Amino acid sequence: MIVVREIAKLRNEIRKQQIASGLDKKIGFVPTMGFLHEGHASLLRKARELADIVVLSIFVNPIQFGPNEDYERYPRDEERDLALAEREGVDIVFMPSVEEMYPQPIKTKVSVSADLTSQLCGASRPGHFDGVTTVVSKLFHIVDPDYAFFGLKDAQQVAVIQQMVQDLSMKVTIVPCPIVREQDGLALSSRNVYLEPEQRKQALVLSQSLQLAKQLIATNDNITIGELQEQVVRHIESAPLAVIDYVQILNFPELSLIHPSTPLSFVQNQIIIALAVKFGSTRLIDNVVLHGKDVVSHV
Amino acid sequence: MIVVREIAKLRNEIRKQQIASGLDKKIGFVPTMGFLHEGHASLLRKARELADIVVLSIFVNPIQFGPNEDYERYPRDEERDLALAEREGVDIVFMPSVEEMYPQPIKTKVSVSADLTSQLCGASRPGHFDGVTTVVSKLFHIVDPDYAFFGLKDAQQVAVIQQMVQDLSMKVTIVPCPIVREQDGLALSSRNVYLEPEQRKQALVLSQSLQLAKQLIATNDNITIGELQEQVVRHIESAPLAVIDYVQILNFPELSLIHPSTPLSFVQNQIIIALAVKFGSTRLIDNVVLHGKDVVSHV
Repeated sequence: MIVVREIAKLRNEIRKQQIASGLDKKIGFVPTMGFLHEGHASLLRKARELADIVVLSIFVNPIQFGPNEDYERYPRDEERDLALAEREGVDIVFMPSVEEMYPQPIKTKVSVSADLTSQLCGASRPGHFDGVTTVVSKLFHIVDPDYAFFGLKDAQQVAVIQQMVQDLSMKVTIVPCPIVREQDGLALSSRNVYLEPEQRKQALVLSQSLQLAKQLIATNDNITIGELQEQVVRHIESAPLAVIDYVQILNFPELSLIHPSTPLSFVQNQIIIALAVKFGSTRLIDNVVLHGKDVVSHV
Repeated sequence: MIVVREIAKLRNEIRKQQIASGLDKKIGFVPTMGFLHEGHASLLRKARELADIVVLSIFVNPIQFGPNEDYERYPRDEERDLALAEREGVDIVFMPSVEEMYPQPIKTKVSVSADLTSQLCGASRPGHFDGVTTVVSKLFHIVDPDYAFFGLKDAQQVAVIQQMVQDLSMKVTIVPCPIVREQDGLALSSRNVYLEPEQRKQALVLSQSLQLAKQLIATNDNITIGELQEQVVRHIESAPLAVIDYVQILNFPELSLIHPSTPLSFVQNQIIIALAVKFGSTRLIDNVVLHGKDVVSHV
């Protein structure tokens, strides 16, 4: 496994490995902010399966954090990340500094329109998705991947990036991968380390409320979008430390609104039940994508 | 010469020609809006010189025109364009329809910040450069060129695209090419066909005023930026049909302001003298890039 920190060196290394293994060899790319967990490991395994050369990037991207967010204290552990990468058979790790990625303040922005980026996480994190699409676009230009792998925990991010790739005719194929959870159901996130023990216990209401929604859908043919949303909210509120940021049910991946009085059985398309809940200053997200009564893991 | 109208076919054709001629062969790309003239021909010749496979695109891009601009009446002549392309040894012409480029309304925008895009042509054409950077970015993803060729008549466009390429780490090298002029000095433009005979005659004040500026610089060591600008304005105003949109002298390619009282001999960097002048509803642009007393054709 090769670790490179400079853009030019990364390009050379990829080119070298491509020439060595045949120019028709496919590049699989997993962009991350590091502090890797089993969710990231599942992306790397999928990349290993589909691609010939697996590139992992680790870069805590300042331009996707708001001024009052956790950029400075975002958890970092280079050594552990490299061990996990090695274990998962990564070929090349790209770990650039902020100066390498943004030698001058960046003047170019790639943005996806408000109908995809202004609600859900975009509402409480203004500018966040512009930072994501800009850095992902830059990373795609540097790595030039055939496939890029993203976790569905950030389902809105997947929808936004798919839109960007389609609109700008990028050659990469986006591969969305299922959410990975702890044994007790908590979706894996680098931010879980922020949780105090009691917060960690109560954080189970996120996954539980999605389970509840699935049960309600399975047993009640006439339930409306509004009733479903209300039940999810009620369950989350049963945790005294939980402060709801949003609980929304939208068409997926369009992220367009569905009228609350619509019976679920009338909805033809995929929907997402998406949650963001704060425990103290830690904001957790979770979601499920459904098509009628069926859970969809691929989008 | 192959003519293709679909993105997928273009990709296949480029790939085919690359495999035939060796994968290390360089792709040169000339993006245009068609109605080709000798200015475009000079770009194609430069591409032929530097690259192995020359791709020309012809696409009148609706998203870079304002609502009251000349998108509908922009001149088109497919047959003549293809003859010129053939003559210049183009390998592949890409002529997509609007539906092929934008099957749905595009939700993704690539934009360069206001310090490069809000003055000069950006001031009278709001949103214009967003349309340019978005379509150029999309075309770059489709063609994947090693070199792309742009005329310096649109000097601000060159500066904006260079910024985009650098910020987003696109692999392409931008090759700016000198302005091509009629015998009498008028800079070539597809829009010159709009000019009535008397407007065409008076349109010479653009290039003449730039010649005048060069003479003033050569003979007057103490001339200030403000005096130079005033002389250029005065000369253009000698044409009764000319209506000045802007006459600006800026640092190039940063496009930052220079205080009018600054003597030219104090300016260390490249500067641009940029003009936009309307004759009736036809807006013409012209410019010269200088470094001290020297005319710079490469940036």
